[in-house]
Amino acid sequence: MHRLPPRRLAPSLAAVLLAACALAWPASADEGMWPFNGLPAEALAEQHDVRLTPEWLERLQQSSVRFNSGGSGSFVSAEGLVLTNHHVGADSLQKLSDATHDYFRNGFTAATRADELKCPDLELNVLMSIEDVTARVEAAVTPVMSAADAFAARRAVMATIEQESLAASGLRSDVVTLYQGGAYHLYRSKKYTDVRLVFAPEQQIAFFGGDADNFEFPRFNLDVCFFRAYESGMPARVPHHLPWAPRPVAAGDLVFVSGHPGHTDRAATLAELVSMRDVRIPADLQQLNRLESLLAAYAAEGPEEQRQAADDLFGVRNGRKSRLGMQAGLLDPAVIARRRAAEERTRGDIDAGLAGKQSPYDRIAAAQRELDSIAGRLRLLEGATAFNSRFFAHARTILRSAAERTRPNGERLREYRDSNRESLELELFSAEPLYDTYETAKLADSLTHLAAALGGDDPLVQQVLAGRSPRERAAELVRGTTLGHRGEAGPGEAARPDSRRELYAGGDAAVAASQDPMLALARLVDEESRRLRKIAEAAQEVKRQAHAEITRARFAREGAAMYPDATFTLRLAWGTVKAYEEADRTIEPITTFAGLFARAAAKRDTPPFDLPPRWQAERRALEQDAAFMATPFNFASTADIIGGNSGSPVVNRAGELVGVIFDGNIQSLVLGIAYDDTQARAVSVDAAGIRAAVARVYRANELLAELGLARAEEQSLK
Amino acid sequence: MHRLPPRRLAPSLAAVLLAACALAWPASADEGMWPFNGLPAEALAEQHDVRLTPEWLERLQQSSVRFNSGGSGSFVSAEGLVLTNHHVGADSLQKLSDATHDYFRNGFTAATRADELKCPDLELNVLMSIEDVTARVEAAVTPVMSAADAFAARRAVMATIEQESLAASGLRSDVVTLYQGGAYHLYRSKKYTDVRLVFAPEQQIAFFGGDADNFEFPRFNLDVCFFRAYESGMPARVPHHLPWAPRPVAAGDLVFVSGHPGHTDRAATLAELVSMRDVRIPADLQQLNRLESLLAAYAAEGPEEQRQAADDLFGVRNGRKSRLGMQAGLLDPAVIARRRAAEERTRGDIDAGLAGKQSPYDRIAAAQRELDSIAGRLRLLEGATAFNSRFFAHARTILRSAAERTRPNGERLREYRDSNRESLELELFSAEPLYDTYETAKLADSLTHLAAALGGDDPLVQQVLAGRSPRERAAELVRGTTLGHRGEAGPGEAARPDSRRELYAGGDAAVAASQDPMLALARLVDEESRRLRKIAEAAQEVKRQAHAEITRARFAREGAAMYPDATFTLRLAWGTVKAYEEADRTIEPITTFAGLFARAAAKRDTPPFDLPPRWQAERRALEQDAAFMATPFNFASTADIIGGNSGSPVVNRAGELVGVIFDGNIQSLVLGIAYDDTQARAVSVDAAGIRAAVARVYRANELLAELGLARAEEQSLK
Repeated sequence: MHRLPPRRLAPSLAAVLLAACALAWPASADEGMWPFNGLPAEALAEQHDVRLTPEWLERLQQSSVRFNSGGSGSFVSAEGLVLTNHHVGADSLQKLSDATHDYFRNGFTAATRADELKCPDLELNVLMSIEDVTARVEAAVTPVMSAADAFAARRAVMATIEQESLAASGLRSDVVTLYQGGAYHLYRSKKYTDVRLVFAPEQQIAFFGGDADNFEFPRFNLDVCFFRAYESGMPARVPHHLPWAPRPVAAGDLVFVSGHPGHTDRAATLAELVSMRDVRIPADLQQLNRLESLLAAYAAEGPEEQRQAADDLFGVRNGRKSRLGMQAGLLDPAVIARRRAAEERTRGDIDAGLAGKQSPYDRIAAAQRELDSIAGRLRLLEGATAFNSRFFAHARTILRSAAERTRPNGERLREYRDSNRESLELELFSAEPLYDTYETAKLADSLTHLAAALGGDDPLVQQVLAGRSPRERAAELVRGTTLGHRGEAGPGEAARPDSRRELYAGGDAAVAASQDPMLALARLVDEESRRLRKIAEAAQEVKRQAHAEITRARFAREGAAMYPDATFTLRLAWGTVKAYEEADRTIEPITTFAGLFARAAAKRDTPPFDLPPRWQAERRALEQDAAFMATPFNFASTADIIGGNSGSPVVNRAGELVGVIFDGNIQSLVLGIAYDDTQARAVSVDAAGIRAAVARVYRANELLAELGLARAEEQSLK
Repeated sequence: MHRLPPRRLAPSLAAVLLAACALAWPASADEGMWPFNGLPAEALAEQHDVRLTPEWLERLQQSSVRFNSGGSGSFVSAEGLVLTNHHVGADSLQKLSDATHDYFRNGFTAATRADELKCPDLELNVLMSIEDVTARVEAAVTPVMSAADAFAARRAVMATIEQESLAASGLRSDVVTLYQGGAYHLYRSKKYTDVRLVFAPEQQIAFFGGDADNFEFPRFNLDVCFFRAYESGMPARVPHHLPWAPRPVAAGDLVFVSGHPGHTDRAATLAELVSMRDVRIPADLQQLNRLESLLAAYAAEGPEEQRQAADDLFGVRNGRKSRLGMQAGLLDPAVIARRRAAEERTRGDIDAGLAGKQSPYDRIAAAQRELDSIAGRLRLLEGATAFNSRFFAHARTILRSAAERTRPNGERLREYRDSNRESLELELFSAEPLYDTYETAKLADSLTHLAAALGGDDPLVQQVLAGRSPRERAAELVRGTTLGHRGEAGPGEAARPDSRRELYAGGDAAVAASQDPMLALARLVDEESRRLRKIAEAAQEVKRQAHAEITRARFAREGAAMYPDATFTLRLAWGTVKAYEEADRTIEPITTFAGLFARAAAKRDTPPFDLPPRWQAERRALEQDAAFMATPFNFASTADIIGGNSGSPVVNRAGELVGVIFDGNIQSLVLGIAYDDTQARAVSVDAAGIRAAVARVYRANELLAELGLARAEEQSLK
């Protein structure tokens, strides 16, 4: 499944570790994740005989929705109805559930608007405008500055630009680093923080085939979910939305994908790729394997434990499989050889003009070595993989927020800048229910991991454990903290206190006076954690400047037909609905409901190939309906996508919705490094399949009516 | 579950990594795993008012059976019937199964003796005599020798003693290092290599509660399995066997456990414990977590894949949970503090008499540091975790066997000594079916791990991968090798060649001429692998000599009331059937079938708390039978056990069988480091429960008759 890493990798970790090495890469065929302000109109016209009008682009852009939990979506009605993937909505489905309601597993249908369920901390963004601020950002940095000073100056000017923009426009404002330092663009977005759940199918059908079929094709998944954006307590009246296409796609059709690819490394240098292969991905996999064992064991304790861990477990398995795919690509000697040859060519040109200055490639390699040398501790402390609990995340936010607010806006850790305050508070004050047993299990495991990684006698480990075993210490911390909303208070049981708002509002004095043990833990590791982050930020700055040099040289040579590496900002991609060859077989690009039932039968309906009760009940009737059985369910295309594109709308030349991206095949997992269309395919739920399932299985007539599909459906039922 | 690590940790790895740091530890209460030739008769008499007669001991000793696949068992009829655990028999159940018969999952009952199924490579041992050969072994080593020379001299004299003993007695002969070098005893055992499966229940009831209930109590598991030893094609007539006790145990009863605890570290020094905590166990867990993810994903592909990976997956989860328990113990500051205090006392005495010589504690610490420094590469290469395939294991055995046979017996790698040849060949020529897809998946994962651990540019990695990606290379190796028995040839498909016997018999010339790619891989890494092993063996020798010094000092002070650390040799333990306190609750020591049905109902019969169809079918009838429902099913006692004890017979004062060890509770997982009887409990299947289940659910009347239980059962059924 294409989804960004779960949020337990805190933004700071993602920012620091997933060094966005974005740079241009020569486009070929349907390659490219293009910003809406930099589309290669000529190439599109030439290759696909299509000219996109400003109106067409504006509608698609303003119908596209970013899920800040890590995914994409689109408006599909004038009243703020949003379509995305089940596995993108899963974070909210999980947080909305409790011991008696499991929406993640069993699905949900709001009978009326009053029944729509408000998500605890979901933020949606819609991109309104892009402005190039490169000159202003670059002007703040002078060549004589140290890397640390240059980083600070850059951070300051970005925070100022964002705050000015927010004040002037009222829109969320983010300065985005493109081409890993080659350009800086200010993205302004409309923000929705009152988002409600409208409809979700059962996880069984959303994720039919489970981990086994994940990242495979052919697929048969109803991986969709509907939310609604609200404003001032009313359904948002949105100026643009995507109409449902009257006809499904056919093989050979051109399709467009508008979404938010999270991160790619296509412009990474060889030194960065080798570090990814030998340092980052192995460490990611160790962590994911450990979490998978832990969560699977926790889930095996019983149905309620399974429910609590369900979305995390899905996320961990998904992350594991995607990284295994990338690792396999990086360990393919042909992949590395191609990159080496390409780098040698470019480097020859660039280094020739250096006049004795150190090559930017060597500066990147040196900075990468420095990053690698602190990567383990940085991940543990600043990445907080040693303190795997939402309680700890809240404690750190409260601690740092109190400290950072005493500083000028431009000098703060980036996530505490004024323009980000509302988003930060949405997450900090989430009503997500936390469970002591679950938080304790995760925290005990991660404290154990800390001790194993640094050694049991390490002074920091000893301070963290405070004379207890990791299990005892975790239990003590979770028992003692009041920094979260407890989910487990039974009937008649007293609700546990929650002091997040009080401490946050109280600032430095309140935080200093607090006896909360989780806050004390966050305080204990903060100095070392900040120290490591500072080193990493300076090394990143060295890389940023070097990458900017490389980018400028390549811009000069290759012109504008370059797209930046993915940055979780809105991009347009396109491709063709197309078969491919695998092991001497042709894999046809479109599956049907007939294929779904056939696969379930072939696997004897055993999990993860079983159908939900609702589908079982209708099975005989559906199987006798030839038109239903032939309806397209999922399809594959050559569009250039990556994690974060999950939930992206797929439209035809007319700009009508034909599908929703939800996955890529196994061959697509190396797209993070380089595009390829021989076998790599993006996988979508077909809009026609969604309509048929909602009508025939779920009979959600209100939803169909809002989508403008009720009449068509009635006709087809006659 | 108490079981030795799966055999994929080759004996060499086990020998090298699991440094047997066996030494005495002052016994208290029911502590101790006592060799049959060194029982503390006085303590037993004093504490439990019992004097064991030579006849009592001889019967128990010669009824006790060692499963060389990693477990214990006992003769329970005069015709060679052996009782053990389902999870000990699982290795054979898995190897006997194929795509159409899944005995591991569904169980097995031989209708007649002709239907008993011969196991592909199972060897059973029965201990016949023990002889102290310490003086002869020590005489071969002189103080002026280097560690490497001392190791070689010791290995040579041990091989000679073993070969002489084998020639003279015809019995399997092993010189066992006790007290980690404090003593050497020659163990002579009768060996059975024709072993057949008689009866196994379904895995669901053998492992009811699955990973969730593993290492927990109360328990409800029918974790048993019956085999039969054969000689010359006929059921073995064995001189001793254990009679079934007429009455079950009650709380407060004294019980004896006779079995083969695999490994403990009670005499490890603090430096060794710290290394275990910070180096070995974290590495074990990383490996187990990785394998768990891999195997679970493979098993999710479908029922046949699930079947192929079932026993490995069980083993990995079991190993993970047991190591987590040990790690938790080692990270408990109280545990370490107690050990530090004890060591300081002993060390003070010993170091006082050194007269300027380096303290044995410091020599151990230095040797341990050296071992730690090579542990990663040693595990990958000599431990072969980089080449996780049975095909590779066979390739290495053939390669090394050809080379080693050209050397004198005493100079060979220990596992190739003449006296071990028959056991080695049994394993090498196993008829276990191997599956290309499964072997490829495991090998690709482990080659990937090799590249991640050493870095993709490491010269050895490059040589191993030979210009391919790990996946391609694994597929090529598995496709090309002929060193195993293929399990997947379908009807009409040509059987794949198997050249193991030919190459083994052909020796050096045949091996040199072979083009088998797996053999070539084994050859490629052999030099480096042997080099690392040599370093490790020398460091182990340093530790052995230092431990011997410590042991002698402690023997002198504490007298004979010391037992050696566990070495997978026969030991006697005892304890009391006894409740314990946990979280302010009293956990009663005996469970019943009523408890089984209640727990299944409480968990809504969802896996792993579901009952097999046979039990479901009988459920109503059984629930109405008050006597059946009240029958003891599992019980807990204070006996001192550890992994390898699985399947051990538990007898009463009269020497009658009252149960079979199959697990320990979570508090018992630290028994590897130190005994404790406040909460730690050994868990057994009750003999009365076995009888009732076999009679009422499986109606295996032949089996009951052979156990001498038919009449009693008939009576109780009237």
